[in-house]
This record gives sequence, structure tokens and C-alpha cells, in this order.
Amino acid sequence: MSAEAKPLNAFDLDLWMRERLDRVERALDTWITAEVPQGEDHGAPAALVDAMRYAVLDGGKRLRPLLVLAAHEAVAPLGHECDAGALRAACAVELIHAYSLVHDDMPCMDNDVLRRGKPTVHIQFGEASALLAGDALQALAFEFLTPQDGSVPCVVQARLCGLLARAAGSAGMAGGQAIDLASVGLPLTESQLREMHQLKTGALLQGSVVMGAQCAQPPANVLAALEAYGAAIGLAFQVVDDILDVTADSATLGKTAGKDADNDKPTYVSLMGLEASRNYARSLHEQALQALQTSGLHNTAALQALAGMVVDRAY
Amino acid sequence: MSAEAKPLNAFDLDLWMRERLDRVERALDTWITAEVPQGEDHGAPAALVDAMRYAVLDGGKRLRPLLVLAAHEAVAPLGHECDAGALRAACAVELIHAYSLVHDDMPCMDNDVLRRGKPTVHIQFGEASALLAGDALQALAFEFLTPQDGSVPCVVQARLCGLLARAAGSAGMAGGQAIDLASVGLPLTESQLREMHQLKTGALLQGSVVMGAQCAQPPANVLAALEAYGAAIGLAFQVVDDILDVTADSATLGKTAGKDADNDKPTYVSLMGLEASRNYARSLHEQALQALQTSGLHNTAALQALAGMVVDRAY
Repeated sequence: MSAEAKPLNAFDLDLWMRERLDRVERALDTWITAEVPQGEDHGAPAALVDAMRYAVLDGGKRLRPLLVLAAHEAVAPLGHECDAGALRAACAVELIHAYSLVHDDMPCMDNDVLRRGKPTVHIQFGEASALLAGDALQALAFEFLTPQDGSVPCVVQARLCGLLARAAGSAGMAGGQAIDLASVGLPLTESQLREMHQLKTGALLQGSVVMGAQCAQPPANVLAALEAYGAAIGLAFQVVDDILDVTADSATLGKTAGKDADNDKPTYVSLMGLEASRNYARSLHEQALQALQTSGLHNTAALQALAGMVVDRAY
Repeated sequence: MSAEAKPLNAFDLDLWMRERLDRVERALDTWITAEVPQGEDHGAPAALVDAMRYAVLDGGKRLRPLLVLAAHEAVAPLGHECDAGALRAACAVELIHAYSLVHDDMPCMDNDVLRRGKPTVHIQFGEASALLAGDALQALAFEFLTPQDGSVPCVVQARLCGLLARAAGSAGMAGGQAIDLASVGLPLTESQLREMHQLKTGALLQGSVVMGAQCAQPPANVLAALEAYGAAIGLAFQVVDDILDVTADSATLGKTAGKDADNDKPTYVSLMGLEASRNYARSLHEQALQALQTSGLHNTAALQALAGMVVDRAY
């Protein structure tokens, strides 16, 4: 037995992730296309699709798709580990995430030129194309959720669309960004900062967990436990993001480090200091794991491992 | 009998519109809200909702909602003239239309300062808020289509979401805007111009007709006839828009007239001349009415009248 070998029962997150990421990347690559659908007169213009593909493919940790799939596998009966609905939901949340980055990077927002180590979309394609690519990616997310081939039951399609719309909209991600925008230079309390992040980042991360679970329509108590898990890791993600903004360098992050401090944006680190922020992230990690225990679900190894990854990540 | 009185059987479009518009305006006013939903921790931030309401309320002809309701009434059995799904679809298409105007007016796109006689959203609220308000309006459209109160069957919710996503996305409205953007100063053929408009304006107008009909799930031949009606009035709308851009003044239009010619954008008028454009609009009007006849539907008075309104409008 080599030094690297793991005990037979240990969960191999790397292997698990590799298999899921492969599926997600292939689906995104196939579905974001300028091909003219059968029976249609015209498809999407190639230039727009180029910008959309640039924004989505070949980059990103794919945390949200992984959360969708992990939550679905935790809830779904054996043999349904990754049905069509869960894969579509996994890709849809990534499209929403990608569109938000495209718009967020634009000059009128964060005015960032570097993302995932590449020029941002508006630098590469121009501002107008970035605006339209983001808009089209949001619409495409809902297309992904509503296939017309009967592969996803209508009741699941409807529920996924509703969850995604709420996670992405004015009482979710877009609302959080609006609060973020309005709070530059303002002294926020911890509860105001938490509310901003619950909307801006938390809503879509939690939404990913809930959407994955809802593909298999679990009982209410299981759903409530997974919602609590999603809320905890959603917040933990942002606390760690704030920590990394001051401790990591731009090359590691793949985006401009120290940006929040430079922009006088309130962060957990500026509010409670570095050490207290680290402790807070650890306690949220604990909350997430506890929520999984109360769910009564057995197949939660991937969700547990992803919670660890959120807190321990270096970028 | 006064001179203005109409024969008993004549369809009174003004009365029909007044009743429907009243319903749509009240629904939009009620549903675009910063109120915290029952059982939720937080709603949308008030500043963002202000910008969203400004973009949608108190303005606009509401042509798309009227098409949804007219198509639904043409297809639906008596007593279901305007069920919850059709009203939600009517409001959802208006949100998509409104968001597209907000983004289209931004400096990186058309850079327009006047819309419906008021300052555009980015002039009134700033560019970043306009960007986010547009993004949030698109998400809200899909929230409108997915109520959780059981008022709209899941099969209808799923179908409406799919239709709206396709009409709004890269092979619909957003795609058409991308072609528009890329075609400034280029000599387009008539078929290229038609394809651009089929996507940019036609997809959502046709989508409105189809969504209204799909609330009542009509047979395929009826749907095909209404699709043809929608395609014809969608194109007619744009031809008339191009005519009005050179014949009307800014005060009447409520937006800057002569803008297309100034921006060297290809239009029907620049391509085929004013008189041929008028004839083309008339022939599309005829096509729309013929499609209604082939539908075999009886209750098409509102759809007929709306087709007339699209062609004869002065703004």
C-alpha cells in the first residue's frame, strides 16, 4: 500500500469532482452553440455566441454546478445520481454566475480587466457585446432548464426556473450587487454586511444546493437541512473571499487582489479583522456539517467535502 | 344614436384595451415590489426596486401584454378569458421588453437620454444601477411565470419559461441586438435586415402571441396559425418603426427621432424607400389577418384590431 493510497471507504473528492466536472464541461460546450436548432429558421449570431462561450468555458472552479450535483446525489435514489434535470440545473447556475461576472467586470461596475487570468469579456469583445452576452447568458440559463425533449418533468422544470429566478433576481444576486454598489465607502454593521452577502453570493450558492435537491423532490425536513447547509457555505464562501482578497496575490486568484480594500468596500476582514474572520469561516463550516447531520441523509460525502473545499481554498 | 356610436356587433378596441391595460398596470404595480415575502428574511433593496419600477411603470404602449391577452382570449374556452397564467405572461413579456430598453439606452449601446418622454434609467439612476435593474427585471420575468401558489399549472409554467427564454435570448431578442450592433454602417440585404428584425423585435412579439395561446394549450394547427400571425405583425411593427423614425418628431415618439439615420443604421426605409416600406407594412398586415382566418378561431377580434393598431400607429 503506497503512502498516497486512501482507505477503501474514504471519499475521493478529486475523483468525484473530475467525473462531474467532465460532464458539466461537455454539456456547457455542447449547449452554448450557434447551431441552428432543427426546424428553426435561424440560430444565435456567431459573434454573440463567441463572447458567451468565452465568458463560460475554460475557466472557473464550477463550485455551483458541483453543489447542484452533490445535493442531487445526496437526495436522489440509487441509479439516478445525475439525471438530466440535475445536469441542466448545474449548467444553468454556472451561466447565471458567469453572466454576473461579465456584467460585474464592466467599466460602470468594478471596471476589472482580468478574470480567471484572461482579459475580461468587455476588454476582449467590447462593452456592448459584454452587456448583450451577459443578458443572453441569463436567458440561456432558463432555456437549459426547459428542454422540450421530455427529459425533465414539467413539475421539475417549473420549480427549477422559479428557484433560479429568485436566486438571481432583485431579492437575490442582483439585489446583493445593488447593495454592494450603494455601500462603497459606507460603514456597514456586521448584520448589514451579512445581508448583502446573503443576497450577492449566498443566494445563488444556496440556490444551487436547493435546485440540485429539488430535482429529486425530497421531503420538507431534508430540504430545510440542505437550505441551512447552503446558507452556511454561502456565507463561508464570502468570508473566505474577503480573507483571500488581502492574503493572496493576483496570480493565484486569477483576478486583481486587494481590489476591495482599494475600492473602500466593506469586507469581513475590514470589519472584524483577519483572525476573527478565519474563526468565523471555521464556525460556518461547522454549521454546514451539522446541517448535513440533521438531514438524516447518508450520501453526503461530496457535500461535506465541498464545504471543506469552500473554507480551505487558496483561490 | 350618436355619430360616435358603433354598431352593436362592432369590436370596441379602446374599451377592450382599457380593461386589459388596467389589469396589467395593476399587476405590474403590485408585483414589482421591495416588500419582504412572507416567511423570507429579506426582500429586494428599495433603491434597485425604484429603478425597476421607473423602467416599467407609467409608460409604454403595452403592446406585448395586449398580444398575450388577445391570443389567450382567442384560444381559451369561455370564462377563462384572462386566467392567472395569461396575466403573468402578459407582465413577464413587458418586463423583458422594459429591461431590453434599459440596457439598449445605455452609453455603450445606443446612448439615449430620452425614453417615453422621460430621462432614461441610466440618466436618472446611474449606469451601474441601470445595468443591475435590467438584469433584475429579466430574472423577475421568470419569477412572474413561476408562482408558488398553485394558480398556474406546472406544465404551463414550464412551457411559458421555455418560450420566454428562447424569445429573449441569443436566438431571439439579444441575438437580434447583437446583429444590430454589428451591422452599423454595413450594407445589409433585405433578407439580412429581416433576419435581424425577426430576432430583435419579432421574436418577443411573436413569443407574446404564442405564450398567450399556450396558456390554454391549443391544438397544433391553431398554434401554427397564431405563430404566422405573430411573425407577420412582428415584422410589420419594425417596418412601421423604421417609417416613423423618419416621418415623426421626437415629441410624438417620446424618444429621439431620426436616430437610426443619424447612426447610419440600416432600416427598411433606407433599403427600399418610404413608399415601398409602407406597401410592405400593408402586405404584412394582410398576412396577419389571413393567418387568423386559417386558424379557424372565432374570437379573434382583438388580435385583428391589434394588427391594425401596429400598422396604423403614429408613435
